[in-house]
Amino acid sequence: MSSTETKVASQEKAVDTPPKGLPQFGASGRRIIYDKDGKPCRACNTLLDFQLATGKSSKSRKEKKEHGQSTESSSSTIASTMPSTTSGTSYYTKVDPPDVTKLGRSSWSLLHSIAATYPEEPTTKQQQDMKSFLNLFAGFYPCWFCGEEFGKYMEKHKPDTGSQDDLGKWLCDAHNAVNKRLGKPKFDCQFWKKRWKDGWDEE
Amino acid sequence: MSSTETKVASQEKAVDTPPKGLPQFGASGRRIIYDKDGKPCRACNTLLDFQLATGKSSKSRKEKKEHGQSTESSSSTIASTMPSTTSGTSYYTKVDPPDVTKLGRSSWSLLHSIAATYPEEPTTKQQQDMKSFLNLFAGFYPCWFCGEEFGKYMEKHKPDTGSQDDLGKWLCDAHNAVNKRLGKPKFDCQFWKKRWKDGWDEE
Repeated sequence: MSSTETKVASQEKAVDTPPKGLPQFGASGRRIIYDKDGKPCRACNTLLDFQLATGKSSKSRKEKKEHGQSTESSSSTIASTMPSTTSGTSYYTKVDPPDVTKLGRSSWSLLHSIAATYPEEPTTKQQQDMKSFLNLFAGFYPCWFCGEEFGKYMEKHKPDTGSQDDLGKWLCDAHNAVNKRLGKPKFDCQFWKKRWKDGWDEE
Repeated sequence: MSSTETKVASQEKAVDTPPKGLPQFGASGRRIIYDKDGKPCRACNTLLDFQLATGKSSKSRKEKKEHGQSTESSSSTIASTMPSTTSGTSYYTKVDPPDVTKLGRSSWSLLHSIAATYPEEPTTKQQQDMKSFLNLFAGFYPCWFCGEEFGKYMEKHKPDTGSQDDLGKWLCDAHNAVNKRLGKPKFDCQFWKKRWKDGWDEE
């Protein structure tokens, strides 16, 4: 991506050296990422490592708000974070911000789905728009560290926006590069369209 | 948003009138959204309604690939869709593309988290970049119907990118507008920062 754009969004972000007295590695064995202000980056670490670095314990829990009753909603859905306005009182379930793992899962799901609905024969404008979108995505990504890595990847491997299949395969390769760094297994990109567009119904 | 940009990405998308012989409403009672080619829009409907419209049944399932053994990975993670390359054979778990509900959950999670790491005092360039990002996001959103609704919302309620809190509250209001349309409860936006940035640890 344009390093300018990467810097734009990450310039107020961070260095990744641990502040004095704070751990360099988490329970997972992964390096703990800190922001420039010295605080652990919530969006860059697993919840467990974030808690290790902050010394705070945290869990999703239902909470009563002013004479209200607790909701029955599951803490695994966005709806569960919404207050019920039943009988005029207002409730909400306390759900913590997503950690780096949840963010990654959500973001890959969105990006692959975007590729799956990208035009088969995009116009020059649509191709340019997709490149801009990917650059801005990397620049604004909540995990500044992950966004910069994605930006570096795009500098070496320019996004292939020539067609839906080109973009889908490029994105699958980009995802595999991250999987490799994280020690996760590689996905066979010949199946990207079944996984993210058509499904497996035909078989 | 700039309607130009919305149209750019959605111009090859769809009309929402049901093709002859296909249902107008799904099991949920919601209108089934179709693409211009007359096929049900997978990213615009719940999996159940999509199956109703296509007559296909579909489920996540583990599958053996050429002499391979099935993996133990859970179908609820991206990792589970990756083949294991252990002992040279390649496996994968068949997981269907996300439906409109999963996509919505993933996308709101990403957008709110982006607002949570947006600069407290953004430069003019960062503010413009965020507006461009939101416009491109709406234009490329896999559910063309949802993307257009978001685009219309942004035409009436211009994104407030003046600060992190401005953007976080604007996005919370935008999310509540969708919740209202879907009959979901309203979130109290005074808590947006606890839900998406700081967590509830302090209390």
